Amino acid sequence: MSLTIGVDVGGTKVAAGVVDERGQIIEKVKRFTPAASPEDTSGVIAGAVAELLARYEIEAVGIGAAGFVDQARSTVLFAPNLAWRDEPVKKQVEERIGRTVVVENDANAAAWAETKLGAARGQTDVIMITVGTGIGAGMVIDGRLYRGRFGLAGEPGHYRVVPDGRICGCGNRGCWEQYSSGNALVAEARDFARRSPGAAARLLQLAGGSPEGIDGPVVTKAAQEGDSGALRCFEIVGHWLGAGLADLAAILDPGCFVIGGGVSEAGELLLGPARTAYREGLTGHTHRPYADIRLAELGPEAGLIGAADLARNGQ
Amino acid sequence: MSLTIGVDVGGTKVAAGVVDERGQIIEKVKRFTPAASPEDTSGVIAGAVAELLARYEIEAVGIGAAGFVDQARSTVLFAPNLAWRDEPVKKQVEERIGRTVVVENDANAAAWAETKLGAARGQTDVIMITVGTGIGAGMVIDGRLYRGRFGLAGEPGHYRVVPDGRICGCGNRGCWEQYSSGNALVAEARDFARRSPGAAARLLQLAGGSPEGIDGPVVTKAAQEGDSGALRCFEIVGHWLGAGLADLAAILDPGCFVIGGGVSEAGELLLGPARTAYREGLTGHTHRPYADIRLAELGPEAGLIGAADLARNGQ
Repeated sequence: MSLTIGVDVGGTKVAAGVVDERGQIIEKVKRFTPAASPEDTSGVIAGAVAELLARYEIEAVGIGAAGFVDQARSTVLFAPNLAWRDEPVKKQVEERIGRTVVVENDANAAAWAETKLGAARGQTDVIMITVGTGIGAGMVIDGRLYRGRFGLAGEPGHYRVVPDGRICGCGNRGCWEQYSSGNALVAEARDFARRSPGAAARLLQLAGGSPEGIDGPVVTKAAQEGDSGALRCFEIVGHWLGAGLADLAAILDPGCFVIGGGVSEAGELLLGPARTAYREGLTGHTHRPYADIRLAELGPEAGLIGAADLARNGQ
Repeated sequence: MSLTIGVDVGGTKVAAGVVDERGQIIEKVKRFTPAASPEDTSGVIAGAVAELLARYEIEAVGIGAAGFVDQARSTVLFAPNLAWRDEPVKKQVEERIGRTVVVENDANAAAWAETKLGAARGQTDVIMITVGTGIGAGMVIDGRLYRGRFGLAGEPGHYRVVPDGRICGCGNRGCWEQYSSGNALVAEARDFARRSPGAAARLLQLAGGSPEGIDGPVVTKAAQEGDSGALRCFEIVGHWLGAGLADLAAILDPGCFVIGGGVSEAGELLLGPARTAYREGLTGHTHRPYADIRLAELGPEAGLIGAADLARNGQ
C-alpha cells in the first residue's frame, strides 16, 4: 500500500498525517503554529513531517495551507491567519526535510479529497464550499483541480451579495461570507438576543446569560431542541448559502456541490433552507437539470487527506 | 486552406459564413429567422448552409445559437428569443444537409473565437463577457471551452448583485445584467431624462425630444460629445461591470477578461469606469496578480467565427 504525508497548516495548529491510497489516516501528529514567525512555521511543518518520515516508507509530501498559493504551487502569497507574505514555503520545507513537497491551498485540497474519496466520488465538476468562520472553496473542473491563472481561484466567499453591505476583513463590503458563515450565524443570534432577550431566553441560557456567550455550538444546540429563534438564524444563513450556490450554478453549472466546514455539522438545519433558496434562485430552473447539494463526508481531515492525495498524484 | 462553415442563429436573423483557419470570413449569407417555428428555423439554417456547401469544399459545420445547449451539444434546451424548447437542432439540421454538425451556445463560440483568434490569443484562462441587450458569457479554462456539467455554464448575467433588486426576464430579481447591459444603460438615461429634462437636454435632442427615443447609440454619441449626464450613465453601468468582473475574479481568477457586445463599442467610456471598479473590488488586490480587461477584437462575427473554428477542432 502506497503511503504519502498530508499536512494541514492552520492559524493555530499544524497537523501532519500518514495517509493511504483510500484516504485512511494511519498516524497523525500535531504541533502549535508559531503564527507570528514565517520561518518558524516552516520549521514546525518540517519537524512534524520528519518525525513521520523516520517511521514510514513515504512516497510524497503535500502541504495544504490556509492562504493564497501561487500558480507554481511553491510560494504562499498571503495567508490571513499566518505571517506568510510571499513566503517560499515549498523551498523552506524541502531544504529542511530533503524531499520534494507540493503546496496547495487548503480548501482546494479538501475539494480534491471530497471529489476523489468523499461525497462527490465519480463526479467531474464539483464545487466544495466550506462554511466555517468564513467561506472557503475549491473547484474541480473536468476532473482536474482548477487553480486559476494565478493560482487564486476559489474565493467565492468574497463575491459581493449586498452592495455597500457588511464590512469584510478583505477590505470590501457585502462579501458572501459576511452573510453565510459561522460568524454570520453567531452575529445573527447575538443580535437577536440583544434585541429580544425574552424570545432568546433559551439561547441566552445555553450561553451562560450573555449575548457574547453565544457561539456556533450554542445556536446549533438550541436549534436542534426546536428553539424558534435559533432555527430562524439557520434559515437566514442557510438562505444566503443557497442563494449563493444558485449564483455559482449560473456561472459554473457544476454537477455537484459539497458543503463542509463546522457549520455544515448542523446538517439539514443548514441544508434544508439552503436547498429551498437554491431551487428558487437558479436561473432558468424550469428548463435545466441542476447540481445536487451534498454534505461533505471527510470532515475536518479533508484538507490533510487531499494534500496527501494531491502529492501522490502529482496533480 | 481548410474551410469550415459557422452559423450564428439569433432571434431575428440567421447568418452562415465560410471561414478559413485564420478566422477570415470568405463569404456570408443571411436569412430572417422564423422565430415562432422551431422546425422552420432548423430548415432556414439548413438552407443557408446548403447554399454554401454547394460552392465550397467544406470540412465541418458549426452552429452557434443563443440558448441553453445540452452537454451532448445536440439539443437546444431553451432559447429565450426563439421557439426552441428541447429542440433536437443537431439532428434536424444533419438530416437536411447530410453532414455532421456541432451545436454550441453562441457566447461560448464567441469566447472560443476571441481566445483562439482574437483579443485573448495565447491565454489559457479567459472569461468573455458580451455586454449587449443583456450579458452573455463564455469561459475557456485550462485552454478548453468550459460548458459545465449540464452544458449550461457561463450565465453570470444572472448572478444576483442586488438582493430583491430589479426584476429580470429570468424570473429572479437583482441579476447582474439588470445593472450592467445595454438595457440598463438606456434605462438609466431615460430615467435621467424624465426626472431632469433640463440637464438631459442634449440626450433628448438626439432622441427626437422624448425619453423613449433614447437608445444605446444616442447615449454613446452624447457621451462622446462630453455630455455629463450621458457620461454618468456610462460610469454607472461601467462601475457595475467592473464590480462584477471583480466578483468573477474572486471565484475564477482568469488570466484575461474580454469585453464584447454592442455596448463595448463605446470603448473606454465603458471600460474606464469598469477598470476602476474592478481594481477597487478585487479581493486581496494588494497581494495578488490579476487579469487585465481587454476589448474584443472580432466584433459581432465572433460567434460565427467561433462556431466554425469549434467545428474544425472537434472541440
